[in-house]
Amino acid sequence: MKNVDLQIDARWIATVEDGTVLEYNSVVIDGGVICDICPTAQARLSYQPTRLHSLPNGLLTPGFINLHNHCAMTLMRGVGTDLALMDWLNDAIWPMENAHVDHDMVALGARWSMAEMLSTGTTTFSDQYFYPEAVAAQAIEMGMRCQLATPIIDFPTAWAKDPAEGFQKTVALHDKYKSHPKVHVALGPHAPYTISDATFNQCRTLADQLNLRIQCHIQETQGEVDEAIEKTGQRPIARLEALGLLGPDFQAVHVVALNDQDIETLARYNVSAVTCPDSNMKLASGFARTRDLWQAGVNLCIGTDGAASNNDQDLLSEARSATLAAKGSSGDATALNLQQTLQMMTLNGARALGLEDQIGSIKVGKQADLVAFDLSDPFIQPLADPLSALFYTQRAQVDQVWIDGQLKVDQGRIAGLDIDELVNAVKHQRKSMEPQ
Amino acid sequence: MKNVDLQIDARWIATVEDGTVLEYNSVVIDGGVICDICPTAQARLSYQPTRLHSLPNGLLTPGFINLHNHCAMTLMRGVGTDLALMDWLNDAIWPMENAHVDHDMVALGARWSMAEMLSTGTTTFSDQYFYPEAVAAQAIEMGMRCQLATPIIDFPTAWAKDPAEGFQKTVALHDKYKSHPKVHVALGPHAPYTISDATFNQCRTLADQLNLRIQCHIQETQGEVDEAIEKTGQRPIARLEALGLLGPDFQAVHVVALNDQDIETLARYNVSAVTCPDSNMKLASGFARTRDLWQAGVNLCIGTDGAASNNDQDLLSEARSATLAAKGSSGDATALNLQQTLQMMTLNGARALGLEDQIGSIKVGKQADLVAFDLSDPFIQPLADPLSALFYTQRAQVDQVWIDGQLKVDQGRIAGLDIDELVNAVKHQRKSMEPQ
Repeated sequence: MKNVDLQIDARWIATVEDGTVLEYNSVVIDGGVICDICPTAQARLSYQPTRLHSLPNGLLTPGFINLHNHCAMTLMRGVGTDLALMDWLNDAIWPMENAHVDHDMVALGARWSMAEMLSTGTTTFSDQYFYPEAVAAQAIEMGMRCQLATPIIDFPTAWAKDPAEGFQKTVALHDKYKSHPKVHVALGPHAPYTISDATFNQCRTLADQLNLRIQCHIQETQGEVDEAIEKTGQRPIARLEALGLLGPDFQAVHVVALNDQDIETLARYNVSAVTCPDSNMKLASGFARTRDLWQAGVNLCIGTDGAASNNDQDLLSEARSATLAAKGSSGDATALNLQQTLQMMTLNGARALGLEDQIGSIKVGKQADLVAFDLSDPFIQPLADPLSALFYTQRAQVDQVWIDGQLKVDQGRIAGLDIDELVNAVKHQRKSMEPQ
Repeated sequence: MKNVDLQIDARWIATVEDGTVLEYNSVVIDGGVICDICPTAQARLSYQPTRLHSLPNGLLTPGFINLHNHCAMTLMRGVGTDLALMDWLNDAIWPMENAHVDHDMVALGARWSMAEMLSTGTTTFSDQYFYPEAVAAQAIEMGMRCQLATPIIDFPTAWAKDPAEGFQKTVALHDKYKSHPKVHVALGPHAPYTISDATFNQCRTLADQLNLRIQCHIQETQGEVDEAIEKTGQRPIARLEALGLLGPDFQAVHVVALNDQDIETLARYNVSAVTCPDSNMKLASGFARTRDLWQAGVNLCIGTDGAASNNDQDLLSEARSATLAAKGSSGDATALNLQQTLQMMTLNGARALGLEDQIGSIKVGKQADLVAFDLSDPFIQPLADPLSALFYTQRAQVDQVWIDGQLKVDQGRIAGLDIDELVNAVKHQRKSMEPQ
């Protein structure tokens, strides 16, 4: 009998490693790392865990990876209903941001986003917003893994007066966290329509020097593509290719308005694509060609986008939208099947972040970032298939979340967080942001 | 002070009558009927209710109307994941139905569906399945309103050996329930590809004689339309127009593969259209042109379809899909706005059923079919707009449901129903249906 920290016995385990769901197996964890996965009967004979956790009606999955978010925008939940992207930005979001974004607002909004993400099974996220240093501090306090894509844009913001200051602050942030096990700094040039060639070139240079990832909104609408062709003679993806921006460290977010050549280019450069289906539908941007991206071999990931265009931070609900939208928009009922959907929100996200050796699947040697879902809700029954229950019924409850084998959520409650105090602060802050 | 049965004081009331949300108003009910809607301060001075119900963080809406379901298919929840419509029918659903559909199976499955519908805010539904007499008995026991569209099809089924027997049983059912306040018998010819001209003609004749509604699956896929043109030289809607089937008593379900002429025809005949977005996405049928149908003046309604292609019976989740899919597929962020979305699932459903004088909105003189949602969940906050919270956050909890002013659901529990006993019966039945 070997002493270990934690053993989780589960009715079902979706490891994401081999496309099957294990039944009546156990995950054994020591020192925050998965050290064995074996039938529960065998685990009981082999291990003496300090903590034993049993999921008789539960499904264990890897922690979810939300690859695109503007966390602090939880404070703008529900702002600008039934508006198109550019009206929503110009008339609703940007005026509110210009008036109210500061370090403390970002810290509070990011904390609020992290609370919702954690309690719905997300253990790793990428953020792209002002004051990333505020988000880093909150993530460390909450114990979440994150990529912070610093906001680079060719006009003055509350955080940086120009791209040069943005780059300088990015370098400082990177220096501060380069040895941190959970905080990863990246570059977040906003979008091809707000970034000059010179600024993009500086992003590439800095990314190569410091080994940073680059996350950028790309071809979110057909209007963006049409306008780019008119202004530059090129589609944005072709322009980025010509500039040498594309590569396995590049995360292209939204990618709704793609032609076949765009998809071929993304695949050829091993770019990661990040779909945000709820946001793309809500803002009437359209449907990303997720089936075609997957078939072309592009590493397809998923994000919630900010709460103002969603309006939630729940990646499971986002994935349900993604699998349904993939089938509905491609006319292929096998598009983005449920194993692929789960891979998109776990292992593929880890690959995009360069963390596939550490997280993204339930595998011996990886960190124990895990989510336990309870599938005993009456209206999940009869249960034919745990993944079908997970994605389609919307009644799977997150019971536990572990990061590095540490229990962060139990029975839906976040360890060490006073949710009532936090929600009151959020309501107070929002009230101060309403137009007078 | 007037004595009344029930007064509900609500933070918000979406009446559906005028496109606004009332704040701090009360709905006053006597004899099962809404007798007043007024500011709460005024109601407190005017009425002495036997029961007073207060919703300090609640939104009151009309009971939802699920206009297309195959209720008993809750027993087939999760059967046939990631399959296209015809494979799903031929390889997964029809073999199971052929082997297992009988009166008792339908009674149990329908009861299970009604439990889920009631607890998620649906007070009225339409069913189209074998053994409608079994569904009628369950609906009466559960106290729900329903339309039973009897299954008419040009091949032998467990319920009827041919359409003639189907019509005969329809007449018998109609005779039994013609004076029942809650059970409405209709005709349910399956689809143009399974119904001959002669059978359609008989449907029209019988519908006219007995004042029955007709519900039919119409143009669910482009393949169905292409095949119809090849076989008959006509699109199905054109064929039905020529046969004289179309009219305000006709409910066209799915209507995914529509051209402009089809939409114009549906509008001209005042046909009701019923969209089932989750089913249409899951089976890769595509997206109904809901924005164009609405703009053309077609009475747009919504249904969950059966649980096997969804996999839930939750009309609020279905409506979320509908509003997102409308925007995403039309490229118009104002498509199916949230007030229209609520109207689609309430008043428009009532119109399709010919019950708009009785239900579908919160209006003096109508029956008190009402749903109370609790909007106090932390992650709904900050709350900008109660309808945005209702449709987009997916965290609005059904607290109470009333039908005719009678409390059917309280704190999520269905009055008089032993849910554990029922779920055990459901699991047992499903086990007996699995392929050996």
